[in-house]
Amino acid sequence: MKRDSTSLRVRLPALVFVLEVVIVALYVLFVTYDDHANARLQNNQTNHMDNTLYRHYPFFADIQVMIFIGFGCLLAFFRLYGFGGMVFNFLTAAFTIQWAILVQGFFQFYTDGKIRLGVLNLITAEFACAVVLISFGAVLGKTSPVQLLIMALLEIPVFAVTEWAVLEYLKINDAGGSILIHIFACYFGLGVTFVLYRPNLNKGHPKEVTSYQSDILSVMGTLFLWIFWPSFNSALTLRGDDQHRAVLHTFIGLSASTLTAFALSALLSKNGKLSMADVQNVTLAGGVTVGASVDMMISPAAAYVLGMLGCTACMLGYKYLTPYLAKHLHIQDQCGIHNLHGLTGLIASAAGICAILLASEETYGPSLYETFSYRAPPEGDPHLEELQRLIPGIQAGLGRSAQEQALYQVAAVFSTIVVAAVGGMLTGFVLSLPYLASPDDDSCFDDKLFFNVPPDFDFKLTYKNTTCTDEEARVELNKQ
Amino acid sequence: MKRDSTSLRVRLPALVFVLEVVIVALYVLFVTYDDHANARLQNNQTNHMDNTLYRHYPFFADIQVMIFIGFGCLLAFFRLYGFGGMVFNFLTAAFTIQWAILVQGFFQFYTDGKIRLGVLNLITAEFACAVVLISFGAVLGKTSPVQLLIMALLEIPVFAVTEWAVLEYLKINDAGGSILIHIFACYFGLGVTFVLYRPNLNKGHPKEVTSYQSDILSVMGTLFLWIFWPSFNSALTLRGDDQHRAVLHTFIGLSASTLTAFALSALLSKNGKLSMADVQNVTLAGGVTVGASVDMMISPAAAYVLGMLGCTACMLGYKYLTPYLAKHLHIQDQCGIHNLHGLTGLIASAAGICAILLASEETYGPSLYETFSYRAPPEGDPHLEELQRLIPGIQAGLGRSAQEQALYQVAAVFSTIVVAAVGGMLTGFVLSLPYLASPDDDSCFDDKLFFNVPPDFDFKLTYKNTTCTDEEARVELNKQ
Amino acid sequence: MKRDSTSLRVRLPALVFVLEVVIVALYVLFVTYDDHANARLQNNQTNHMDNTLYRHYPFFADIQVMIFIGFGCLLAFFRLYGFGGMVFNFLTAAFTIQWAILVQGFFQFYTDGKIRLGVLNLITAEFACAVVLISFGAVLGKTSPVQLLIMALLEIPVFAVTEWAVLEYLKINDAGGSILIHIFACYFGLGVTFVLYRPNLNKGHPKEVTSYQSDILSVMGTLFLWIFWPSFNSALTLRGDDQHRAVLHTFIGLSASTLTAFALSALLSKNGKLSMADVQNVTLAGGVTVGASVDMMISPAAAYVLGMLGCTACMLGYKYLTPYLAKHLHIQDQCGIHNLHGLTGLIASAAGICAILLASEETYGPSLYETFSYRAPPEGDPHLEELQRLIPGIQAGLGRSAQEQALYQVAAVFSTIVVAAVGGMLTGFVLSLPYLASPDDDSCFDDKLFFNVPPDFDFKLTYKNTTCTDEEARVELNKQ
Repeated sequence: MKRDSTSLRVRLPALVFVLEVVIVALYVLFVTYDDHANARLQNNQTNHMDNTLYRHYPFFADIQVMIFIGFGCLLAFFRLYGFGGMVFNFLTAAFTIQWAILVQGFFQFYTDGKIRLGVLNLITAEFACAVVLISFGAVLGKTSPVQLLIMALLEIPVFAVTEWAVLEYLKINDAGGSILIHIFACYFGLGVTFVLYRPNLNKGHPKEVTSYQSDILSVMGTLFLWIFWPSFNSALTLRGDDQHRAVLHTFIGLSASTLTAFALSALLSKNGKLSMADVQNVTLAGGVTVGASVDMMISPAAAYVLGMLGCTACMLGYKYLTPYLAKHLHIQDQCGIHNLHGLTGLIASAAGICAILLASEETYGPSLYETFSYRAPPEGDPHLEELQRLIPGIQAGLGRSAQEQALYQVAAVFSTIVVAAVGGMLTGFVLSLPYLASPDDDSCFDDKLFFNVPPDFDFKLTYKNTTCTDEEARVELNKQ
Repeated sequence: MKRDSTSLRVRLPALVFVLEVVIVALYVLFVTYDDHANARLQNNQTNHMDNTLYRHYPFFADIQVMIFIGFGCLLAFFRLYGFGGMVFNFLTAAFTIQWAILVQGFFQFYTDGKIRLGVLNLITAEFACAVVLISFGAVLGKTSPVQLLIMALLEIPVFAVTEWAVLEYLKINDAGGSILIHIFACYFGLGVTFVLYRPNLNKGHPKEVTSYQSDILSVMGTLFLWIFWPSFNSALTLRGDDQHRAVLHTFIGLSASTLTAFALSALLSKNGKLSMADVQNVTLAGGVTVGASVDMMISPAAAYVLGMLGCTACMLGYKYLTPYLAKHLHIQDQCGIHNLHGLTGLIASAAGICAILLASEETYGPSLYETFSYRAPPEGDPHLEELQRLIPGIQAGLGRSAQEQALYQVAAVFSTIVVAAVGGMLTGFVLSLPYLASPDDDSCFDDKLFFNVPPDFDFKLTYKNTTCTDEEARVELNKQ
Repeated sequence: MKRDSTSLRVRLPALVFVLEVVIVALYVLFVTYDDHANARLQNNQTNHMDNTLYRHYPFFADIQVMIFIGFGCLLAFFRLYGFGGMVFNFLTAAFTIQWAILVQGFFQFYTDGKIRLGVLNLITAEFACAVVLISFGAVLGKTSPVQLLIMALLEIPVFAVTEWAVLEYLKINDAGGSILIHIFACYFGLGVTFVLYRPNLNKGHPKEVTSYQSDILSVMGTLFLWIFWPSFNSALTLRGDDQHRAVLHTFIGLSASTLTAFALSALLSKNGKLSMADVQNVTLAGGVTVGASVDMMISPAAAYVLGMLGCTACMLGYKYLTPYLAKHLHIQDQCGIHNLHGLTGLIASAAGICAILLASEETYGPSLYETFSYRAPPEGDPHLEELQRLIPGIQAGLGRSAQEQALYQVAAVFSTIVVAAVGGMLTGFVLSLPYLASPDDDSCFDDKLFFNVPPDFDFKLTYKNTTCTDEEARVELNKQ
């Protein structure tokens, strides 16, 4: 009976088919093409090369590589959970994007009773997907695919509402998604894992090991994320110089955090050797840390320093905070998302606020009111007309001061954390319902539970001609 | 003597050098630059940013990733045939593209005694290459590199003639190549493998196993194909909204088939576990199924349903049809290309016909006569002038009705199947000639035959401290 | 004491933090945004879609894949040095790019006391990074990360000065970087390895073996380099037809060298089998060989022949020259960079000179003076005005004849070789200073030295139920 309880034979198809029927019905009722994908709206004024496809598709493709290959490989770092890491990532992402197209569609792309679909929606849906996959990192190896689909099913609406409310009412600057994507995803994931607490796993688990190949595979994932992160951070900025800066800052931030990660990895290891887990995770911290100010005139040097700071916080988090959270707060953060997305997201938010407070017409020229559109003078203000003579594209804003905008940013950070944590905990309660094929403690981090595995799945290790356990081999190999 | 018969020492270089001399001679005689690559044709009217390079190169690069990495990794799923899968794919693709540039060049890019070469030709050559690589899937592990090169040598002209005849005379809609690429490749491959039938392999082969790493590698290939499939299906559509829809439909179709594949994999497995072979192959069915109608106004919901349908057909094909074909019709379809490319291609064709029959000016506006260019009124028709006032780019067509166009589509499907199957069988006879280094049954699926292998190539498996065979280990691991 | 001498605990962080402080200081003092990334310079004349970002970013992204994934995987071919190959590549590349932005910035992007930073600088920095990574190939597995960082620290200034001097004073044609990138990197690397000569390694090293998985991973690296090489060779050509030709020639050259590599691999192996080392390296020779003439009107057939020639030279180099260099000249070229980058670079240079000598207005039209800008008539020459009426973009040149330009090319090749070799040797002396964590001979090619390794790191091999050494297994497997 215990054994049968994780069979996917009925549970997974039943859930999937219900979801698919619902999605198809909603697509039939509500989804149509946007203006740039609708044949009927093309006429002799249409220049096909101005189609939004050409603006968005390259960024979309880059982000797809990050989602499916980057996350997929990165999460495949366990020796006996490579299938789970890579394949559940695939399943979850494929579902999440379909679902996010609908849910975000209702909030962001809904006019005249229809969701207007174009490649732009796919990009926003991939961002929503990144949110779910980050949260997934907190419970990797301890959840069934059924649970993961339900988590995505619940997380997307909470995320979409938060995103919509923050952008619509608080109107913040967060081009790289440090607040809305990384902080939200992190605290949602921590909320879930808090409820799914497994006391037995605090002592470590015999299958929580990597292998030589899985470590290399995971680094490949890191590299794909690293390479395309500038596309992620710049996909939804304003075109032109804003997007140009976003690319530069992300690249510089990542470079700085990579260099710092290697230094800290050697410094903090007892034997002066590098740790692959640091290479896989901490190197990426800079991408998050520059996120909230990525399109601003912060200067290349500031991006560099942000990369170093984010990396340091992330590394110290892995070293000290993650064990503390697990032991004392019952938050078992499997992949350390609080370090890579939470701490760095908070630093990013602070940096964004500083950048907002320092932003002036002297530095930005009239573009100030494009990058910080809510600081533009309101309709009717004579200053607006003056600005529009300089840059016709500037639109009426809310006339916020830098200080006001900073307060809205603070409000956004706090409300995001609260909504995400509460939403995560509620989701955690749903996931702990029976019949969701949750693995028992022994079967965590083990592909045998949900996959037909190949013959060499669990080969025994020999060291110096003696068959030995993983732990014995590890100790033997790494002792000085 | 038996042993020597698969040495590549003389056979492969002899064949390659002959081919290279022929290709160089033909390049010298016939290949020159197209207008956008020819320095002589640039003048003060030239806007360099309008060069066709910028329109085609991004799609070309995406398709290259699919051909070399996507197919390469996907075909490396056997534990002892990873080199063969990935490296013979590389060799075959590199040759096929060179050859297709010439052969397609004579049919499609030939003016004034010269083939005009630009990046566009490279894209069409990569499509031809995809055809050969799909066919390769039918005989994977059972053919030598010499045989593969000869297969490519013969398949490309048959394909190029078919492609040219169908597009020139039948004038069909097939933007994603479901008919010309997938159906052709499938039945050609089945023709080849039918002639190369190996009765001994019907009982299974001890080396037909995967390993943990090879399964992961193969999923990576799947993911790269998945990610860039929208570029494949949209590379040769009309620019603008047609291409935009092609991207959307492909993405939606793939998402739907992925979700469905997981559900069916669990449902149809005896022990309620997922099978990696399904994840590697069946998830991709949606990309083929939307192909023939990918640029039409079929609605996002229809793309979703097509993804589900294609996936279901593909899955049932793997489960029931492939064993049947092998046992009763002597068609040993190694990678199940009939499921992933044949059945789905047929569904795609049917869907394309429905979409053609349903297409109306009401839905498309005057763009109808761009997407379905052969339905445009013929030269001199007053309706044409009226349309051209609305959209100047519309060109005179054949004035076909929807029903007529549908019949041409049907004719295209049947003639493609017949030509491909006959061409494949004839090619099969050529491949069964002696001196082509064909592996004997025992050496199938074994890299040792054609490669110098590294020391760990065939390590023995131990399970519970006992050395055991692959089969014993597999049974042991997967029993409940 | 011996043991401690390779601990990275103090050495690596100390070096990195010093470098970071210096870099940040220089960024603060000297680096600002270029005109297309500076918000202040946008006004009502700005068309955001003309931002240079959109011209350069796609090429930049492709080259990033080559640098981090392509090189990273390719260099991970050793069974016990996969971490080192991939991860030290990551570290070295991340540092090199930061450093190159500054050093090249002073030479190429410096105006009014500031380095102007845009995506274009990142591309040139990635080229500089490729130089360091190629040189790294000569000493792979025999150097510590500390040594690699110092090598990059020293190589970049030597490279930047050479690049600047050659382009500024000799003014050569070298669009694909065959001279400045490949030849420079090769002879610099050979200079370093000459000084770091380790006599004990000439007899071979027990850890210099590959594994099945590492060979496959390395081929993946090759494939990524292969796929994106057209972007590398064309990134800095003139826009339009020049760039179009660069893509075509690179693709054709690579295809030809791939086909040739397979033929020669079979031909030159004793047992008529293919060698993975050839597939990993020699297939790429064509990309270098077409480099110096890649944007010229050499004809597709010539690109094909160059690919074949380069491949042949490269293959013979691996077979005969590399062992000779190691034995008689004390140059231990670990990855054979002299074959893949040196010999091919020399052929490319010769081909470039031929192409320059053959170039005429008859073939190029007035574009001749764009592609070969230094052959344009000088300011005031009436012929210049005539040309500018045909193509307004043509700028005044130096009025060089083809023969003069050819001599400058020859001068560039020789001076590059001399500067690189001398610079490499001096760098080698610095790297042989104490306290740089240089591995002793036994610990070469061994990840255990610098990494905490997973339990399965050094599993023993069994063959026919007997535990055996790598060498025994290899001999057993590959004997006929």
